Amino acid sequence: MKIDKLVGERFKERPSDCVVDSHALMVRGGYMKYVANGIYSSFMPLKRVTKKIEQIMREEMDKIDGQEVAFPVVMPGSLWSESGRYESIGKELVRFSDRNDSPLVLGMTHEEAAVQLVREYAQSYAKYPFMIYQIQTKFRDEARPRSGLIRVREFTMKDAYSFHTSQEDLENYYDECHKAYEKIYQRVGLPEVVSVKSDSGMMGGKVSHEFMLLTPIGEDSIVLCQECDYRANMEAADNILDEVRDEVSEELVKVSTPNQHTIEEVCEFLNADAKKSCKAVVYQRNADDKYIVLFLRGDLEVNETKLTNHLGFDIHPAVITEESGINAGFIGPVGFSADAILLYDKSLENMNNLVCGANEVDYHYTGLDMARDIKGVQYYDFAKIKEGGICPVCGKKAITISRGIEVGNIFQLGTKYTTSMNMTYVDRDGKEQYPIMGCYGIGVGRLAASICEAHHDDYGPIWPMSVAPWQVQLCAVRSDDEEVKAYANKLYKDLQDKGIEVIYDDRNVSAGVMFSDADLIGAPLRIIVSPRNMKNGVVEMSSRDKSYKESVALDIALDTAVNYVKKALDDLK
Amino acid sequence: MKIDKLVGERFKERPSDCVVDSHALMVRGGYMKYVANGIYSSFMPLKRVTKKIEQIMREEMDKIDGQEVAFPVVMPGSLWSESGRYESIGKELVRFSDRNDSPLVLGMTHEEAAVQLVREYAQSYAKYPFMIYQIQTKFRDEARPRSGLIRVREFTMKDAYSFHTSQEDLENYYDECHKAYEKIYQRVGLPEVVSVKSDSGMMGGKVSHEFMLLTPIGEDSIVLCQECDYRANMEAADNILDEVRDEVSEELVKVSTPNQHTIEEVCEFLNADAKKSCKAVVYQRNADDKYIVLFLRGDLEVNETKLTNHLGFDIHPAVITEESGINAGFIGPVGFSADAILLYDKSLENMNNLVCGANEVDYHYTGLDMARDIKGVQYYDFAKIKEGGICPVCGKKAITISRGIEVGNIFQLGTKYTTSMNMTYVDRDGKEQYPIMGCYGIGVGRLAASICEAHHDDYGPIWPMSVAPWQVQLCAVRSDDEEVKAYANKLYKDLQDKGIEVIYDDRNVSAGVMFSDADLIGAPLRIIVSPRNMKNGVVEMSSRDKSYKESVALDIALDTAVNYVKKALDDLK
Repeated sequence: MKIDKLVGERFKERPSDCVVDSHALMVRGGYMKYVANGIYSSFMPLKRVTKKIEQIMREEMDKIDGQEVAFPVVMPGSLWSESGRYESIGKELVRFSDRNDSPLVLGMTHEEAAVQLVREYAQSYAKYPFMIYQIQTKFRDEARPRSGLIRVREFTMKDAYSFHTSQEDLENYYDECHKAYEKIYQRVGLPEVVSVKSDSGMMGGKVSHEFMLLTPIGEDSIVLCQECDYRANMEAADNILDEVRDEVSEELVKVSTPNQHTIEEVCEFLNADAKKSCKAVVYQRNADDKYIVLFLRGDLEVNETKLTNHLGFDIHPAVITEESGINAGFIGPVGFSADAILLYDKSLENMNNLVCGANEVDYHYTGLDMARDIKGVQYYDFAKIKEGGICPVCGKKAITISRGIEVGNIFQLGTKYTTSMNMTYVDRDGKEQYPIMGCYGIGVGRLAASICEAHHDDYGPIWPMSVAPWQVQLCAVRSDDEEVKAYANKLYKDLQDKGIEVIYDDRNVSAGVMFSDADLIGAPLRIIVSPRNMKNGVVEMSSRDKSYKESVALDIALDTAVNYVKKALDDLK
Repeated sequence: MKIDKLVGERFKERPSDCVVDSHALMVRGGYMKYVANGIYSSFMPLKRVTKKIEQIMREEMDKIDGQEVAFPVVMPGSLWSESGRYESIGKELVRFSDRNDSPLVLGMTHEEAAVQLVREYAQSYAKYPFMIYQIQTKFRDEARPRSGLIRVREFTMKDAYSFHTSQEDLENYYDECHKAYEKIYQRVGLPEVVSVKSDSGMMGGKVSHEFMLLTPIGEDSIVLCQECDYRANMEAADNILDEVRDEVSEELVKVSTPNQHTIEEVCEFLNADAKKSCKAVVYQRNADDKYIVLFLRGDLEVNETKLTNHLGFDIHPAVITEESGINAGFIGPVGFSADAILLYDKSLENMNNLVCGANEVDYHYTGLDMARDIKGVQYYDFAKIKEGGICPVCGKKAITISRGIEVGNIFQLGTKYTTSMNMTYVDRDGKEQYPIMGCYGIGVGRLAASICEAHHDDYGPIWPMSVAPWQVQLCAVRSDDEEVKAYANKLYKDLQDKGIEVIYDDRNVSAGVMFSDADLIGAPLRIIVSPRNMKNGVVEMSSRDKSYKESVALDIALDTAVNYVKKALDDLK
């Protein structure tokens, strides 16, 4: 490919609406173009990157006996009603009607379609296990698309679905798939991706893992133990507690706390440690706005995923009205009389000498003793683990919290979909059973952006050889020089004949323009042919990541470049 | 791939809802599954066929300097309003709203997206010409999806868009693309596809061609001259006339024709040739139901595409009310006084001694002379050409009409989209100009089904080597025989090591089941290992199309098979 014909604009200025580097560089480099909120078109360089990523995924899925299939983008609403998700999923699921007023949806995931495809086929145990996958467009009407390709509404995803006749078989395959995923990240040049235990959310099922690229721009909080292997998504991390109650319980005393609303204000006013306070966080049920009041230790934050999973319905932060009878800022567990669901976090269990609201404007209690003052309630884990907290596995106070981008996930789904959609098989004993499912997803565009996020400098992406849009950027500086032109033209042809992907810059532009364009295209190997180099009988070769630079004699330039590319590809196998 | 793990059901009975063979065989062979009207999932065999077709398209598009890009499936309605198509296209265009009530559409074609992608990039003549293409899912809410993959609602399409600075350059590229298309059909095993001149319809532009596979199950009528090269879609074929007026004009006489409504009834009643009659066909404008009355010769049929193109608005067959003042069944050009747009087909121009309606119940005229009785009207070509009609090119009465499936189309779009969407470039003289576009499409699934339609027998598809889901079907008849099993297992491995795609049947089933499954999978080469063959020191090789059958010695079976596959692939290059 000659760069002067490459469709797409490249420019220097960072676009003001790009928050993360991968987004800015992919816009500046002519990789993508905004079409609508969370919807982009791809130019050729990005398409080349994503095709390579897709091929790597395909190969690794095929190696674990995956069968590539295709599900529709547009599906009948009735199919999603079978699983109950037509009703249970929020606005992310796009619902519309066709010309005959039949309800349709845009696929945001394909469990229903997978079950629909195989439920007549797989009626005997002998057909199991099997895995089907596709690489295809999905649409999720995200409330807040952002960060370029990191969080979009339309995206391409590799999604795989496996079917098993025993939990053990599922677990074995799940582990195989876990390894295949590690291999994929390795091959695309992101070996640093880690897997963390995660919450299964709307997918259903119990065990699941997310694959995370740790980076400050990540949207997810990852809990890591510095002393052992423990890694979990914040949403799934147990909050372990080791506080003990004071030996002596003080009396419960109502104190005046004029205009002290937040728990921080109250604690400072009463000279109490936040750890010795009981705060209230109020939500409302989406369906009917019923209030939910959660009490937890003043220094902790609510893990809303744990909370929603416990409740089994969707909630939103409360708008507290006067009629509710709730005294916002002064809520406490003693004498709370408004209509609400009350919940208690484990951090309060058995604790004493706490500060809490008195359910009366400008009054709090001191000396709250949960065991003594609040009878007959259950305590659950609703809190986020904190930096420096206790590891749920090794028990050491060695928890750190990092940011990460989720670049893949795997779920043990169980029989949620096969049961609801009535997919059965006859086992060896002639008994009808529900197959057990696993599902496994990776977003292609997000992975491309994550590679760019992990591998770039101020001037452009530094693509790993396996996914680079082109492997070699050939720059003919001063292509008006006959000798330069002849040599570079021949090298361009020879490299291509050897199967090397070359982007060739023979424009009549300055070396500066040439090099800044090459930085944006990010080919791993750069070859510079120039009058000065020609005079010395060499070309200049350098790697985009600056780890390699060499003057190579003209007659061995071809072989040197071919070997460089081959070795780099081998290193990523 | 071992067939016992291949997901998908294969069965013998033709499904009752399958009208065309390709549909029936692809359902029976476990290629596809119905999800909703015009929406299917693909199993692995079909996915393998379509991936190969896509790769062939990609290679041919790349050879004519196409750049693969990706446009979104979901686009903002505002983008389609720019071209005017958000409003002008009917219900085929799916329109819906996102969570913020922003109008969105599902892409059924991507001219708007193509212009949007490049209009900032291509502002100088130096950037031209260029072509961008994608292979991607589209959705068209067809009123009547049918014939399996021939006419669906969701489909994958290769669509390409070229941009030029002169009509001449467009035409040159259009010819190149025409050749690339011929090459694609050749390579997928459909060299019999012909290109025909077509009507551009809603795409805009003047010159366009459709690529047609001639087959009785086709939905389109193709006009072919048996004496010269002329080929055209019925919608685009000029209707050439050679009737002359009678020397003597009779008088215009009103005659009683009680209960004679249709032109056939009237002609029989009056003992007149249908060619000597003037019939009326009535439509209404979609926008306001205004009547349109078209007069044409009684033996001809209306070409509604020509009619709509002439009118410039959409119409539908009329519902004639009493208030309209139109006497259905007795409409004629003399004394017609109702409120309507009147049109005259060329077949009537200057003709005389015609029968026509008298605009009065139970009365017709005889002796109508268009030149004498109807003054100051224009005649246009609104009629369909007939079997045996006159060729518009060579002038011979050698027209035949065949059925065909449209398997691709190319359009010279002109500046319709660049003008409406305000895409301009600065030419060599510093003047702003609108680029000239071409567009080029092939549906992947329809092409796959067409290949099957053209190449099958009662037992299954006969896939060309270039697109077959697997190249070789290896059948180990009696795999419980140790010798058979050992040899077949080794051959399976050796063939794969040579890069041959093998589907391996080592099930413990009868030869009958094995062969009927092999017929449905349609691999071009079949190799049968059996105890009897082993005893004779041979394997049996045969082609799916029955043109080749050979007993091959065990030690040269591998090489023979490899050579067979290579040669078949070479033949399709």
